[in-house]
Amino acid sequence: MRQSDLPLLEALHRYKGQAPSSYHVPGHKSGVFLSKLEGTSDSVVYDKALIFKTLLNIDITEITGLDDLHEPSGVIAEAQALAADCFGADHTFFLVNGSTVGNLSLILTVCEPGDLIILSRNVHKSVIHGLMLAGAKAVFLPANVDASTGFSYEVYSQHLKEALEQYPQAKAVFLTNPNYYGLTIDLESIAQLVHEYNIPLLVDEAHGAHFGIHPKLPKSALACGADGVVQSTHKMLTAMTMGSMLHIQGARLDVTLVKQRLSMLQSSSPSYPIMASLDLARWLIIHYGYAWAEDVINEIEAFKIWVKDETHFGIWDNDDPFKIMMFDRTGSLSGYELQQALEARGCYIEMADPENTLILLSLASTKQDIEKLVENLKEIQLVFRLKEQEIEAHFTNKVSRLEYIKQLKLSKPVHFHLSQWKGHKNPDQTTLVLLENAIGECSAEMIIPYPPGIPVLLSGETITKEIVVYLKKCADMGARFQDAYDSSMQSVLIYKSN
Amino acid sequence: MRQSDLPLLEALHRYKGQAPSSYHVPGHKSGVFLSKLEGTSDSVVYDKALIFKTLLNIDITEITGLDDLHEPSGVIAEAQALAADCFGADHTFFLVNGSTVGNLSLILTVCEPGDLIILSRNVHKSVIHGLMLAGAKAVFLPANVDASTGFSYEVYSQHLKEALEQYPQAKAVFLTNPNYYGLTIDLESIAQLVHEYNIPLLVDEAHGAHFGIHPKLPKSALACGADGVVQSTHKMLTAMTMGSMLHIQGARLDVTLVKQRLSMLQSSSPSYPIMASLDLARWLIIHYGYAWAEDVINEIEAFKIWVKDETHFGIWDNDDPFKIMMFDRTGSLSGYELQQALEARGCYIEMADPENTLILLSLASTKQDIEKLVENLKEIQLVFRLKEQEIEAHFTNKVSRLEYIKQLKLSKPVHFHLSQWKGHKNPDQTTLVLLENAIGECSAEMIIPYPPGIPVLLSGETITKEIVVYLKKCADMGARFQDAYDSSMQSVLIYKSN
Repeated sequence: MRQSDLPLLEALHRYKGQAPSSYHVPGHKSGVFLSKLEGTSDSVVYDKALIFKTLLNIDITEITGLDDLHEPSGVIAEAQALAADCFGADHTFFLVNGSTVGNLSLILTVCEPGDLIILSRNVHKSVIHGLMLAGAKAVFLPANVDASTGFSYEVYSQHLKEALEQYPQAKAVFLTNPNYYGLTIDLESIAQLVHEYNIPLLVDEAHGAHFGIHPKLPKSALACGADGVVQSTHKMLTAMTMGSMLHIQGARLDVTLVKQRLSMLQSSSPSYPIMASLDLARWLIIHYGYAWAEDVINEIEAFKIWVKDETHFGIWDNDDPFKIMMFDRTGSLSGYELQQALEARGCYIEMADPENTLILLSLASTKQDIEKLVENLKEIQLVFRLKEQEIEAHFTNKVSRLEYIKQLKLSKPVHFHLSQWKGHKNPDQTTLVLLENAIGECSAEMIIPYPPGIPVLLSGETITKEIVVYLKKCADMGARFQDAYDSSMQSVLIYKSN
Repeated sequence: MRQSDLPLLEALHRYKGQAPSSYHVPGHKSGVFLSKLEGTSDSVVYDKALIFKTLLNIDITEITGLDDLHEPSGVIAEAQALAADCFGADHTFFLVNGSTVGNLSLILTVCEPGDLIILSRNVHKSVIHGLMLAGAKAVFLPANVDASTGFSYEVYSQHLKEALEQYPQAKAVFLTNPNYYGLTIDLESIAQLVHEYNIPLLVDEAHGAHFGIHPKLPKSALACGADGVVQSTHKMLTAMTMGSMLHIQGARLDVTLVKQRLSMLQSSSPSYPIMASLDLARWLIIHYGYAWAEDVINEIEAFKIWVKDETHFGIWDNDDPFKIMMFDRTGSLSGYELQQALEARGCYIEMADPENTLILLSLASTKQDIEKLVENLKEIQLVFRLKEQEIEAHFTNKVSRLEYIKQLKLSKPVHFHLSQWKGHKNPDQTTLVLLENAIGECSAEMIIPYPPGIPVLLSGETITKEIVVYLKKCADMGARFQDAYDSSMQSVLIYKSN
């Protein structure tokens, strides 16, 4: 088995090449239903449905020769072993339910009910969901924010050491790196520290699957020594959406249990196209990762210089060149307004917050993508007459969030459980109040502005004035609140104080 | 909004038609990476990778106008509402992680830790996994097997009533219908009975998404009155693999909580192609479901008559014409051997067990599929000289399983918890013994021959001689044992008797 092989994608092509007849699921029978639609009066629908045609040829099931994701011993095992070799892991699991299922499985591997884990606050909501499923306790590390930008979310070794000393029963440390804005923490020294306490370091590297493939990119979490790492191969590499990987190295995690947790949480009919796209993504990294990264990073560096020197926009410094966090230095356009202006011109961006828009490029991006961006930013600058506005006014927007984040210290242990979402079913215990009347009350729900899906308020936390101000601002500016009882963020569910 | 609309598929085409530039995930950028591979020396890989090309155009993320599966208010909400209308539900949720996630979510909606639920024993393993995540208790209904075939898994109202009387604290009844072999239970009278106790009836209808679309098909679970129904739209209809639906009707289930459970367990980056394929599957049912079913069922009926009248093969009667459970009446070929013989001739079947092969057709099957089957069965009959063998000898194979299943009465409550998979990590409590030495011991693991993935042994159950005989036979005949500690089934993990 060599890195030039594509065991899974090749097996699917071999199968397809035999022109096999299907007497099994899936019911679409390699897309044969399309031929029944062909020639009917529904030609408009037929034309639209054709987009599925070629891929359905490999959208098959675990028939002989195609292995079994949940008990791999053939081509899936080979593809996973090649991925482990490529990314530097001892074991790699292909994920078909996104990094979400990787995070859930890691938590359910290290935590049983009542167990405690140490987390950074900027964990993805799937980590919180894992804690709810596990019935585990979490202490959240202090939030250390770089005051000049507001994006950096540092984890200081000193704070982590205090937490590890104060909670010697902790089963693991779980951190997000990089964050959504492409900023990283000093994972190497953190890994060393965590391992002094002989517990595993788990890293949600959803946004860093491309780390380590070029010298201008940060080191990968595995290279830094993390024990369990989740990567969204679909985000920064080339896999189909929901295609992710879970990497394990060393002996601090029970690989058998990880496998069992994954088989609990992933479909018993996993998607072969998604798995094959993971196989192909690994192959591309090996053969073209460096060269493609080199080209795109060069384009991005030139673009950033242009923005800084010749426009009214600003770009925050970060560690991942593929993530460009841009804002209007004149304060005229909010992040959401800049997003709308770009979308009106056919440029769809990753996300916006009250101040910024996040532009995300990848190995697949082209020179033309950058040129289109330049052209449209020039036009937006003119149309909105940005030069007439007052520079720096927008900073007022950011202050409330910075003040809020800065006041968060090492949390008390928060005990998560499945009924934390069910407050609204227990009118004896909880009540819905207007957000402005909730100051000083205890939240009975988790509030997550989306994107990027990081919890601002946890069930069981006290609601401060700063949090209320921040949430109202998010709502005014169009953020979405998934899973909130009142998704308009007019009101919030609190525990009644008896 | 009308059933002639395809809100989600059309929105994706509209988006694609704008030739938008992507500054967001996924990293493949609508498949643009393929153009970077084009013209390189890796033309062989390029050709294979091209199979992804057209579909990657709609493999996108939750950008403006494309709604959000976890908080739908636009085209996904519309597509789900049309599906609810088509299948007769009050609410329909699109699933991108298979029926697995539907079953998990239903269990986690009705059960909190310590709660009790009534189940049939032939539930899919995802139901057991849901109980483990919920920390719930289950009582398993007696197994009532039709002695002539061994496939039918009846749920008698009398047994269910006894269970409901004995366990008035039960939160729900969860049944599988149809079973993997296309046999159904009397769901309508069961629903009436369950509702007398004012608890919800949950049905895993994974293999029956096509029920109700033609008079020769059984009634759907929703039509029978079930409260929560999970359907694998990819199994018997035309969705991409992992595309399923969860339907809710009535007020016995908390729809808000169902939604929250799904958002815990499904990727925060759900696959748009899978969701759009659900939209298309609903449209096809409305417009062509009856006509295509009529054609294929006619072909199947003629095929069955031919098999019975003119071959040495037999076909068991069942309720779903699309599932054909065939066996060699001469006893020469085991189910696995018949499977191999068919596969050697390019006919891939759904599954085999020691006696039978399961042939699965669908609305997409063609006259040519049937003809190929006929041709190959004729040849297999000749090559293996089936007429020279003794008819009925194979029945010895089946007896041990029948005897084993028949002895299962209403179980005591089994309390499920997350550490049930972890026995091997606690050498103080558990030990691995040879299967033949395990008779009379208490199992510390769940044993599931696969396919079809129905638990034969639960953690906490006593291991009988009949179970040992049956498991050895399964292993000898090539069944796979996912998640078993010893997947070769030589040995089994038991609790030490102190």
